Amino acid sequence: MRGEIIAVGTELLLGQIVDTHSAYLSRECAELGINIYYHSAVGDNRERLKEILRLAGSRSDLVLITGGLGPTEDDLTKEALAELLNLPLVPHPPSIARMEALFARFGTSVPPGNYKQGLVFEGGTVFENRNGTAPGVAVTHGGTTYVLMPGPPGELIPMFEEEVKPFLISLLPGDERIVSRVYRFFGIGESHLEERIKDLIQNQGNPTVAPLAKEAEVTLRLTAKARDADEAERIMEPVRREIMKRVGGFCYGEGELSLEELVIRRLLDQKRTLGLAESCTGGLITRMLTTVPGSSGAVKGGVVSYTSDVKKGVLGVPAGVIERYGAVSMEAALAMAERARELFGSDLAVSVTGVAGPDPAEDKPVGLVYIGCAEEGYPTRAYRLRLGGNRQGIQLRAAKHALFILQERLKKGEAQT
Amino acid sequence: MRGEIIAVGTELLLGQIVDTHSAYLSRECAELGINIYYHSAVGDNRERLKEILRLAGSRSDLVLITGGLGPTEDDLTKEALAELLNLPLVPHPPSIARMEALFARFGTSVPPGNYKQGLVFEGGTVFENRNGTAPGVAVTHGGTTYVLMPGPPGELIPMFEEEVKPFLISLLPGDERIVSRVYRFFGIGESHLEERIKDLIQNQGNPTVAPLAKEAEVTLRLTAKARDADEAERIMEPVRREIMKRVGGFCYGEGELSLEELVIRRLLDQKRTLGLAESCTGGLITRMLTTVPGSSGAVKGGVVSYTSDVKKGVLGVPAGVIERYGAVSMEAALAMAERARELFGSDLAVSVTGVAGPDPAEDKPVGLVYIGCAEEGYPTRAYRLRLGGNRQGIQLRAAKHALFILQERLKKGEAQT
Repeated sequence: MRGEIIAVGTELLLGQIVDTHSAYLSRECAELGINIYYHSAVGDNRERLKEILRLAGSRSDLVLITGGLGPTEDDLTKEALAELLNLPLVPHPPSIARMEALFARFGTSVPPGNYKQGLVFEGGTVFENRNGTAPGVAVTHGGTTYVLMPGPPGELIPMFEEEVKPFLISLLPGDERIVSRVYRFFGIGESHLEERIKDLIQNQGNPTVAPLAKEAEVTLRLTAKARDADEAERIMEPVRREIMKRVGGFCYGEGELSLEELVIRRLLDQKRTLGLAESCTGGLITRMLTTVPGSSGAVKGGVVSYTSDVKKGVLGVPAGVIERYGAVSMEAALAMAERARELFGSDLAVSVTGVAGPDPAEDKPVGLVYIGCAEEGYPTRAYRLRLGGNRQGIQLRAAKHALFILQERLKKGEAQT
Repeated sequence: MRGEIIAVGTELLLGQIVDTHSAYLSRECAELGINIYYHSAVGDNRERLKEILRLAGSRSDLVLITGGLGPTEDDLTKEALAELLNLPLVPHPPSIARMEALFARFGTSVPPGNYKQGLVFEGGTVFENRNGTAPGVAVTHGGTTYVLMPGPPGELIPMFEEEVKPFLISLLPGDERIVSRVYRFFGIGESHLEERIKDLIQNQGNPTVAPLAKEAEVTLRLTAKARDADEAERIMEPVRREIMKRVGGFCYGEGELSLEELVIRRLLDQKRTLGLAESCTGGLITRMLTTVPGSSGAVKGGVVSYTSDVKKGVLGVPAGVIERYGAVSMEAALAMAERARELFGSDLAVSVTGVAGPDPAEDKPVGLVYIGCAEEGYPTRAYRLRLGGNRQGIQLRAAKHALFILQERLKKGEAQT
């Protein structure tokens, strides 16, 4: 199936917003086995919109369109397509009833302009919008299926997940199922990972193997086509096993779970608590962990000890350690982790000290980072890293290293409990 | 001038990367007064690439193209355009010499595939790539100017800024200058800001007035066309004055300076230091501040006191305050700010305590946040906020509020010194 995606909105052409929908829909289509050949963006202009829709209809079996379903006069997507295909728009009573109920809840009546949002193509498939007033709608004409979806991400994504995706699957030949698994890697660059599984990527068929680099991590997505989920798993199994044999040491998880979520989940599962002492990461690790809902049950607190005075005064790192080895040293990392654990009365503590740049410090090079990890009943360990990139890149990589070390520690804990 | 933008790369159509270049180039073009009517993305496929380029040539005066200038066989942009326009490609000796010098520095010779990157259109304008091996090139044919630029952002953006932008300006009629000013607002939503200056937006001419919402802030961009910078400033002045009369109280700065950069700059200018005590923001404020290079000269440190034990034990908030008023209270915020200032020995300290959600705490509603601010020689103040949004939104808004309060404090300091 030959598909393309059109994003509608003058704000895209002014560069006021970045079109992330087309990438999202493309990923979803890739998983479904739908080939996307073009993306286009066009403004809220009736003639140009019709021109793009005409072109899309001439070259694609499936046209996914986002935006331009709002209540204002500028919102023209549905009207332009109706004109182009000469299809009547008819009221969709359930959508209108939903809209009226929604406005009634705010104590107002539906503004007249909004009623046009309740119009759909006669004979089309309507997708309910649970997060807004504009329903989505699909219509097939001249061998092309057009799918219109609202532009706001909070409306588009749930609608796609819940309604449009099953609809697209129903268009696919046969009763194929598409199943994917995502594996998350840390500590190995994308090119190195690709190098090690090059043959699997080059000779891929079913399942497909797609690496993707994202914020100092790499994910690998396996996607299988099969008659059912069990068969899909069987198809993926040998490839998964081969991948893990080669790069499994860098794999920390599966699915959408991030490193910080994994750490919080393991801490909560094991009923253990964490304290943090951060220097060059400036609170980033604490910040990442506390973004996770429920983290307050696991993270006791953190100290950002940006200066040696704070390392000594607040954390209680012995002055001798800093004077002798410097604040950026294995010894300082060890002392910071131990003192953070005492200070917060936590089961574990992690510390980071290093040089994030842009300038060297204590005659130590930018990118030199030490991570300490203290745990009740175990000797405190520290790790030395040499990280590349700019200041923010070094901070992010150092934070992710610390989280990776933590989750490895907690994996051991899991094995013991 | 009628323009459009084409992004080339199969990874875009697979959704592996989001096309941010088209938005970037669109913003730049909007400032230059070039109207962009279309964005397109197409894969590394010779025929489809030629088809898109043919279409673009038929409808636009200017076609900006990113990507597909790499050394591999998949990189086809230049070749496709050369075939379409039937234009010869010729070696560009300075680009080839740069490439050879670059590889020599790594102790290797130029891989044969890379030499094609040194080919350009005969009679075209070449843009030097200081951050990679692929030069950019512009060529005019049949009334359309095609500009080819490399895809990696670290190559595209500097090339655009330094070379392509002046080239585009040279294409514009007359000797018009385009000048813009960006004003940054906090504490007012985009729709409220728009509402208050609606007439200025609706009746805009020269200068143009463009509001843009971004991460709990709003910016307003004024853009004037004039013969020179002075005239542009004169054209903008009455509109700027009218805007500031209406919403100036929410304006914290101009240009690209963020709230955290502003706070750090003011602290460094005034040679003052800061300590932080964060509860519901989980280290976010410390994190934002320490992202700024040079922040180590101003931020002494921070404590993330996620639990009442840490508030008492580490920060030294009196147990009575927490028992009587709760950890989320005006009194706790005041005590946290004062104790943070003592602990870090800083000139100022800021504290945050609140309920970020998803669940209420201490019978207090999600979104209730207190911010404390302690300063040497002044009474400690605390502020009560009711913030909307999800957990991350509340954390971000609370952090920005704290930074906004801090920069207001420091503005006073500026007036006094």
